[in-house]
Amino acid sequence: MVKRIGVLTSGGDAPGMNACIRAIVRSAAHYGIEVTGIRRGYAGLLEGDAIPLDPRKVTHILERGGTFLETSRCEEMKTPEGIRKAVAMMHRMELEGLITIGGDGTFRGATELSKAGGFQVIGVPGTIDNDVYGTDFTIGFDTAVNTALEATDKIRDTAESHNRLFFVEVMGRNRGFIALAVGIAAGADEILLPETETDLKALAESLKRCYRNGKRSAIVIVAEGDVPGGARAIAERMQGLIDVEYRVVSLGHVQRGGSPTARDRILASELGTAAVDAIAEGKSGYMVGMIASEIALTPLSDTWTKTKELDARLLKMLRILAV
Amino acid sequence: MVKRIGVLTSGGDAPGMNACIRAIVRSAAHYGIEVTGIRRGYAGLLEGDAIPLDPRKVTHILERGGTFLETSRCEEMKTPEGIRKAVAMMHRMELEGLITIGGDGTFRGATELSKAGGFQVIGVPGTIDNDVYGTDFTIGFDTAVNTALEATDKIRDTAESHNRLFFVEVMGRNRGFIALAVGIAAGADEILLPETETDLKALAESLKRCYRNGKRSAIVIVAEGDVPGGARAIAERMQGLIDVEYRVVSLGHVQRGGSPTARDRILASELGTAAVDAIAEGKSGYMVGMIASEIALTPLSDTWTKTKELDARLLKMLRILAV
Amino acid sequence: MVKRIGVLTSGGDAPGMNACIRAIVRSAAHYGIEVTGIRRGYAGLLEGDAIPLDPRKVTHILERGGTFLETSRCEEMKTPEGIRKAVAMMHRMELEGLITIGGDGTFRGATELSKAGGFQVIGVPGTIDNDVYGTDFTIGFDTAVNTALEATDKIRDTAESHNRLFFVEVMGRNRGFIALAVGIAAGADEILLPETETDLKALAESLKRCYRNGKRSAIVIVAEGDVPGGARAIAERMQGLIDVEYRVVSLGHVQRGGSPTARDRILASELGTAAVDAIAEGKSGYMVGMIASEIALTPLSDTWTKTKELDARLLKMLRILAV
Amino acid sequence: MVKRIGVLTSGGDAPGMNACIRAIVRSAAHYGIEVTGIRRGYAGLLEGDAIPLDPRKVTHILERGGTFLETSRCEEMKTPEGIRKAVAMMHRMELEGLITIGGDGTFRGATELSKAGGFQVIGVPGTIDNDVYGTDFTIGFDTAVNTALEATDKIRDTAESHNRLFFVEVMGRNRGFIALAVGIAAGADEILLPETETDLKALAESLKRCYRNGKRSAIVIVAEGDVPGGARAIAERMQGLIDVEYRVVSLGHVQRGGSPTARDRILASELGTAAVDAIAEGKSGYMVGMIASEIALTPLSDTWTKTKELDARLLKMLRILAV
Repeated sequence: MVKRIGVLTSGGDAPGMNACIRAIVRSAAHYGIEVTGIRRGYAGLLEGDAIPLDPRKVTHILERGGTFLETSRCEEMKTPEGIRKAVAMMHRMELEGLITIGGDGTFRGATELSKAGGFQVIGVPGTIDNDVYGTDFTIGFDTAVNTALEATDKIRDTAESHNRLFFVEVMGRNRGFIALAVGIAAGADEILLPETETDLKALAESLKRCYRNGKRSAIVIVAEGDVPGGARAIAERMQGLIDVEYRVVSLGHVQRGGSPTARDRILASELGTAAVDAIAEGKSGYMVGMIASEIALTPLSDTWTKTKELDARLLKMLRILAV
Repeated sequence: MVKRIGVLTSGGDAPGMNACIRAIVRSAAHYGIEVTGIRRGYAGLLEGDAIPLDPRKVTHILERGGTFLETSRCEEMKTPEGIRKAVAMMHRMELEGLITIGGDGTFRGATELSKAGGFQVIGVPGTIDNDVYGTDFTIGFDTAVNTALEATDKIRDTAESHNRLFFVEVMGRNRGFIALAVGIAAGADEILLPETETDLKALAESLKRCYRNGKRSAIVIVAEGDVPGGARAIAERMQGLIDVEYRVVSLGHVQRGGSPTARDRILASELGTAAVDAIAEGKSGYMVGMIASEIALTPLSDTWTKTKELDARLLKMLRILAV
Repeated sequence: MVKRIGVLTSGGDAPGMNACIRAIVRSAAHYGIEVTGIRRGYAGLLEGDAIPLDPRKVTHILERGGTFLETSRCEEMKTPEGIRKAVAMMHRMELEGLITIGGDGTFRGATELSKAGGFQVIGVPGTIDNDVYGTDFTIGFDTAVNTALEATDKIRDTAESHNRLFFVEVMGRNRGFIALAVGIAAGADEILLPETETDLKALAESLKRCYRNGKRSAIVIVAEGDVPGGARAIAERMQGLIDVEYRVVSLGHVQRGGSPTARDRILASELGTAAVDAIAEGKSGYMVGMIASEIALTPLSDTWTKTKELDARLLKMLRILAV
Repeated sequence: MVKRIGVLTSGGDAPGMNACIRAIVRSAAHYGIEVTGIRRGYAGLLEGDAIPLDPRKVTHILERGGTFLETSRCEEMKTPEGIRKAVAMMHRMELEGLITIGGDGTFRGATELSKAGGFQVIGVPGTIDNDVYGTDFTIGFDTAVNTALEATDKIRDTAESHNRLFFVEVMGRNRGFIALAVGIAAGADEILLPETETDLKALAESLKRCYRNGKRSAIVIVAEGDVPGGARAIAERMQGLIDVEYRVVSLGHVQRGGSPTARDRILASELGTAAVDAIAEGKSGYMVGMIASEIALTPLSDTWTKTKELDARLLKMLRILAV
């Protein structure tokens, strides 16, 4: 079994990353494996910016948002030279394994590192966007959805008080997972997703039907990547099509932060533990995920080359419930 | 297809019951089925206490805790005479189907009603306790766990500030689902469950080890049904075994209420929709549940005669992470 | 004493308006005065859109955001013709008094109505902006500040994780009350207010000093009315002046909604009660407010012609604490 | 001016204590005064358990509940010998001033220390109970009230769903400040306070009137110190007097923790700053408080010998609004 591994968080921060680091450090201690915390993602790896971790150093981080190891997006890791430097630094730091917590960009780098050989590499899906193949849910998604939901509930107070139409933009540059979940949970009247064609005339008809049905306000959830310009662009283009007072709210970075929900803390604990189990079993080149409530290992290269489907059942349900 | 069905909530209230009623009413409207809301559970059914529902009447109830149809525990429905009266009332109200939202007590009654024949009966699992066979999660469980978690996070502030040991009692008269989830999510040092033997000496040793390991406070999550007297009884019996200042908090009914989480609203919407689908397909005598992310139908009699297992993976993980 | 009065909410909705309506209806019942709820602010008054209220009709509205009477901004009430119509409608509805809950725009109309004579007019300050002369705090301000604060706490998670500078725009088109309170409560590094000259070079120097002092991230709270274009305009103009990665978040309408805080519910109850007391005492043409913890009556015309000062003590303190 | 002062937190922890310590350290830096953090209240002072503080060491503690300096209740400080030891330790640590954050017990000790002479002593009111003479509000009170309010809102969901009577016990061993504020904010039907005689027959009559008026549930807020045994004792004695199903919830220690509200953070910042200002001005033997929105200095001995009155206006209002 390996003696020492590194752990890093990379890409956008997500609530539950700290809970995952805690689980990794404590699971590793159970196996007698030492853990080095690499700061600022791959950027820190290239510089050897690291601190030793032990079970006491991860006390009371479980409930905190963000990542205490910090994170970054690192252009250099997209180049062969960057990978070579990272491998060399892994050897210099005497790390026999690496657990990377992040999203698809993180796993591209991890795939290359794992091919370079010489040490084990395991990925853990940590991103609010839930757009990673190989797991039903990513760490941070549930918290982000609940944060956006609470905001949308508040917006509904004003929508109802003023009889207004609101366009609420939630995160999701390429995928609509957050928008779909928030839309159903908030009882939105319409949801606009990057995965589906947005037909503004049909949207206008649908909203008019809402008002004819006796609704006094309406909420449209818009994934930021639905069209260039997001919710604001949609709202402006709707002006000729429907004659109601509207407002636009973009929830923005608020969705990234906050204390993780129970579900995200438990998922982070399970996946962190599973990542260390995989290391202990000598595995490499996999992401640990949760599929149908079971731990599942997926080749790292699949996680960013294959596409995770939206839940068609939810899409269909939305139309039925938003009458 | 049926023309008119009833819906009722029974047993302890759970966050998401309103979201489920909304989904049932609007899904039924999609099929052209009328819905009658029966008030105060089986007690209201026996008295014919009911109101007509339509899509507008369930506007903006999605986000509200409790159940606007009200609920009750009804002794009469445990008798053959009660069942006969209920059947007669179903006929008098011209209801061809009944959807009951509740827990195991609710489903005992529903099983009898379904055997009595003459109308379709479908159950939906709505209880914070998650102790229903045939579904991975019940409506209300996720909200209750998050409510108890937020409370435990707050208690930790005081535990840390005073270097104290806290016994936190959460709901769960017969089962430890809430305690297990809260314990892992809160990073509890120990969890005491009805399903496992509670050894106070071993508990004392474990807590002493926590302090030797450098922890300055500790939290023990206790399911109310772990031993007679709950957390307070445990704490008192521990006095001779460990010499630290302790406090007991029983979270109580706070765990029942509150606006449902995203997960509970989505689950409630999915199960409510699935219940109406089952009615439309002519099914009767089943509970709709979610197993491994798929809708699953389970015979109503199984839901309260078979036992749902705790997740052994979580139990094992807790010991590893609480070092 | 009067027999029947009307109550309306006008302008932007604010959390606590419902609590205030409840207090007005129940206080009036104590005096034996009937209350008519006028819907959609002055627009509803002009149309006679009204419903009778009684203590049972305002049950369980205390905790709800927005205003169940709905609100609007009404251009017609700015004209003499509009005032005449409103007076005529007051007589037709046999209302001997009117309580208007809102902000400065609301009180302009109320001032004119009160001059028109024939009935008593009392104002209650309900706006999240706190920009009303004659009261230390307006109903809704405390809730809005806490909502913006929770959002800013979440943003700090990401700011710290990515070592980023965030510009957070909060509501306040003309005044910086929200920005000042949020800035101090969030431990912001800088606050930009409409009331003070914004010197971008000085801001850049101040932020550089933060980083030199060892801070790894920074947060600047920007009142939306600080400069044309708000936080985004500021951020863009800062690009040549400081070389750090930044993000902009505009909190927007989320700040208007949500269940009111304890403070807002108590304030709303006190001011609603005081408004009815003033009516019972035969007063007219005043706004009831809270100054130094005491109920205070201010002539309606003063509330929008005189200017409430920002708390200079808080401004000075911010500089000292943000080191 | 003094060169070095100590700061400690003592008694029960309160949200905002960390914000106050931050303000003290940063205000002191502004004056060029060094600050030593004394751990675990007076117990730590007697042992010289202390750490040096500077502006960076108090970064990101503003938003955290509890007190990172930890706290304790210390019997030895109630003895002349304890005071002598504390004075000796102050000299040994070369502290020329001491700021103590806590409640009446804390200020008894502080009064003695201030009389012993040789250094300046200033108190800051930090306790959730708000039972300190010389300030309208103590640090932590607003957060505790909001925490108890959110819990009571959740309980109301269940109360309404089951048509039940709930007795909700809130903190307040000797005083009813929390109970009164929560009762009004939650729209409670009755409030039982240590300051007023509790007449169970009158309570029963009042509750019966609630039901006659059409209410379907009721909530009674009970200050823990109202009668021996608290809410449970009241509920049991009510059994013969009123025939409705009831439940008892004791909110307990949850009320102590949690991230402080905006109001508590601002108050803590203001009082912490004012305490250092007082030290800089050479003052000793005072508590800094906030009276009618102004900083006020009160002799330390007054803070625990004089009695702060409940707000009679609120008490009277409750009866009128709970119809």
